[in-house]
Amino acid sequence: MTVQAPRGTQDLLPGTTEKWQFVERKITDLCRRFNYQEIRTPIFEHTELFQRGVGDTTDIVQREMYTFTDRGDRSITLRPEGTASVVRAFVQNKLYGSPTQPTKLYYFGPMFRYERPQQGRMRQFVQFGVEALGSKDPAIDAEIMSLAMSVYQELGLKSLKLVINSLGDTESRNNHREALINHFEPHKEELCADCQVRLTKNPLRVLDCKKDREHPAMATAPSILEYLNEESGEYFQKVQNYLDHMGIPYEVDKNLVRGLDYYNHTAFEIMSDADGFGAITTLCGGGRYNGLVEDLGGPETPGIGFALSVERLLMALDAEAVALNENSGVDCYFVSLGDKAQEEAVRLTYELRKAGIQIDKDYQERKLKAQFKTADRLHVKYVIVLGENELENNQVSVKDMESGEQQEVALCELVTYLIKALQGDKQDGK
Amino acid sequence: MTVQAPRGTQDLLPGTTEKWQFVERKITDLCRRFNYQEIRTPIFEHTELFQRGVGDTTDIVQREMYTFTDRGDRSITLRPEGTASVVRAFVQNKLYGSPTQPTKLYYFGPMFRYERPQQGRMRQFVQFGVEALGSKDPAIDAEIMSLAMSVYQELGLKSLKLVINSLGDTESRNNHREALINHFEPHKEELCADCQVRLTKNPLRVLDCKKDREHPAMATAPSILEYLNEESGEYFQKVQNYLDHMGIPYEVDKNLVRGLDYYNHTAFEIMSDADGFGAITTLCGGGRYNGLVEDLGGPETPGIGFALSVERLLMALDAEAVALNENSGVDCYFVSLGDKAQEEAVRLTYELRKAGIQIDKDYQERKLKAQFKTADRLHVKYVIVLGENELENNQVSVKDMESGEQQEVALCELVTYLIKALQGDKQDGK
Repeated sequence: MTVQAPRGTQDLLPGTTEKWQFVERKITDLCRRFNYQEIRTPIFEHTELFQRGVGDTTDIVQREMYTFTDRGDRSITLRPEGTASVVRAFVQNKLYGSPTQPTKLYYFGPMFRYERPQQGRMRQFVQFGVEALGSKDPAIDAEIMSLAMSVYQELGLKSLKLVINSLGDTESRNNHREALINHFEPHKEELCADCQVRLTKNPLRVLDCKKDREHPAMATAPSILEYLNEESGEYFQKVQNYLDHMGIPYEVDKNLVRGLDYYNHTAFEIMSDADGFGAITTLCGGGRYNGLVEDLGGPETPGIGFALSVERLLMALDAEAVALNENSGVDCYFVSLGDKAQEEAVRLTYELRKAGIQIDKDYQERKLKAQFKTADRLHVKYVIVLGENELENNQVSVKDMESGEQQEVALCELVTYLIKALQGDKQDGK
Repeated sequence: MTVQAPRGTQDLLPGTTEKWQFVERKITDLCRRFNYQEIRTPIFEHTELFQRGVGDTTDIVQREMYTFTDRGDRSITLRPEGTASVVRAFVQNKLYGSPTQPTKLYYFGPMFRYERPQQGRMRQFVQFGVEALGSKDPAIDAEIMSLAMSVYQELGLKSLKLVINSLGDTESRNNHREALINHFEPHKEELCADCQVRLTKNPLRVLDCKKDREHPAMATAPSILEYLNEESGEYFQKVQNYLDHMGIPYEVDKNLVRGLDYYNHTAFEIMSDADGFGAITTLCGGGRYNGLVEDLGGPETPGIGFALSVERLLMALDAEAVALNENSGVDCYFVSLGDKAQEEAVRLTYELRKAGIQIDKDYQERKLKAQFKTADRLHVKYVIVLGENELENNQVSVKDMESGEQQEVALCELVTYLIKALQGDKQDGK
């Protein structure tokens, strides 16, 4: 009987991991250009962090966390998202003390939510996320959105839509909150049990409810945009001006709320309406969270960020049939015949690898013909052949697998010869 | 009150993550040259996998696992090591069916062991590991060791020692096992409680006990090398021949056992005796595990691999004072004055980033002088200045921060100008 991977998790195998590496390299380079630096936080945190940092009323905290007690009797939770951890690290490591603010951070890593597994929603999934802590300049809201859009655009996606909204500051939110309560109170009994609780605790999240989506009171609910005070309204206007200047198209959706408790002012999502998806799909979500740093014990610090699922990003690339330019095939393969030649092949393979050349050899005691067949399967560019004849003359035969040409090369010249040949191929765009 | 990272875990912050990235890039390139491909398995597995795949009698399984029950009442464990998961994935995904054998895999990722945290031993740590499944050619044992050594050597470490041993095949191990029992049985009462159990279940691991290390019977215990049958002896000899041919120095240590149950034939460790460590330290361990694939429900498949802690690798680099050539500093910084110039700066910064240039700007409403100071702190090469004058003339001033020279550049030529300037710097080795 074999043990299987746990439900909702998956193995990424060769053939797939190359795509992941390609996407990660691309994103890492984008972050370098935008001057965001990497942070890595632990896979698990004290449960309290997410209760405080994600919010007690969220689905994530109420239903979806992998929470357990460790051998030291601590309540530990596998992180369901990245922002709370990054902010915790920002506070604990006193990054707010650095003179170069804002602190611009990015992260890659697995997140965990106990949900019903489905296409594009696994219990373990990988997020790429970005946080800019310490600036309340609307220009950085625009920078954050331009970075998120660049991720998708530079990988070649076209069916993208940036949707933005403002949730306003505390005053605006309080006024809107009151209006929402007044609006929904008469219908309270008709809403789902969760929404009845939300209406008292966090009425904004009623707008986000999947169950009550069709309730007639939803369509007529007061919009936050009508309740923005002057400062919040101006802030939102500036964010839009910057996006206009940068030539980034967007839509304002007054119903965009986001599922987490901590957002205020700018909220945004990037959606894909690629045919391959069937329905419109959210690829990325983010927003401003002034106040979260204080909630987690730090000094007053504004913040904004976004996170995206790498799995969904790859699905979007599939849906738009974008081919990634990832490496495949092996540059060289060593074919040898006889015990002495095998010893020499082991030595030379190691030499070539140390010289930077990608090369493999047989480890299955295959006959000559089968070794060539393996080289074919690996899409090898050059096969190096070492038999008894070659061994006696201190040389090898190098076969160019595309042209079929074969050339004798002295052992001592092999490294130089192959480096030259492979560089030539690269210039030819092979 | 602030929430802290859980005991035994750490945040990797900017300044440190660059080192990690450098090491990972280097290792990834080495794996490419050796033709190992990446596999990514889940962070947690069914607990049973490690009970069967790591071994019930090991310290890891008995004492150190993060085991918990998920919301679906499954016993789940955060992976304490990588081999069991990779072999599980090899079996579950039927990788043994591929015609290109051996299957050569590598992985990077966090592992979890509930131990007393100390220098170089965290509860969450990162392993890089390699597994070659499907070959029983002693040449691949040598390849695996050459890859492990290359990781350290190419990063610049010098105080390295490769220590090898053979644990033999089943027959050899059984004979040795009997000899061990006969040897220790008269001293059973003097051994620690764990060893008394081990003596029945897995007497080889008595040799590995830290508590009984000084017991006189240890020094006179029968060595496995005296009990290798002819086939196992020959196998071990061939492995050594290949290492000799490759010019890789090694020592045979007949007491080298390794803490996991599944090893046979070749076992090895790489140690560092760098002064900075104080005592000799194991950096990397590996060995052959023919039989493990069958134990986990797959077809008869030989295997060999190793794993190393990236934290210890970085400690070894510190101990030998090896400087890594990681990137630091930011190429360009945009300094602007006035609202109009700020809008234009936002647009141009985005343009430059899209063109591949690394550039940042101010988001703190800093005055001109303070913006220049930030540029200094970021070790910027070029500062682009946009004030009202420049704006009127559709140009910017570009200041070379090393030479102090300043040049007016037309807006439409800025991208080309900076790309050229930065390439020139690169050629000058800046």
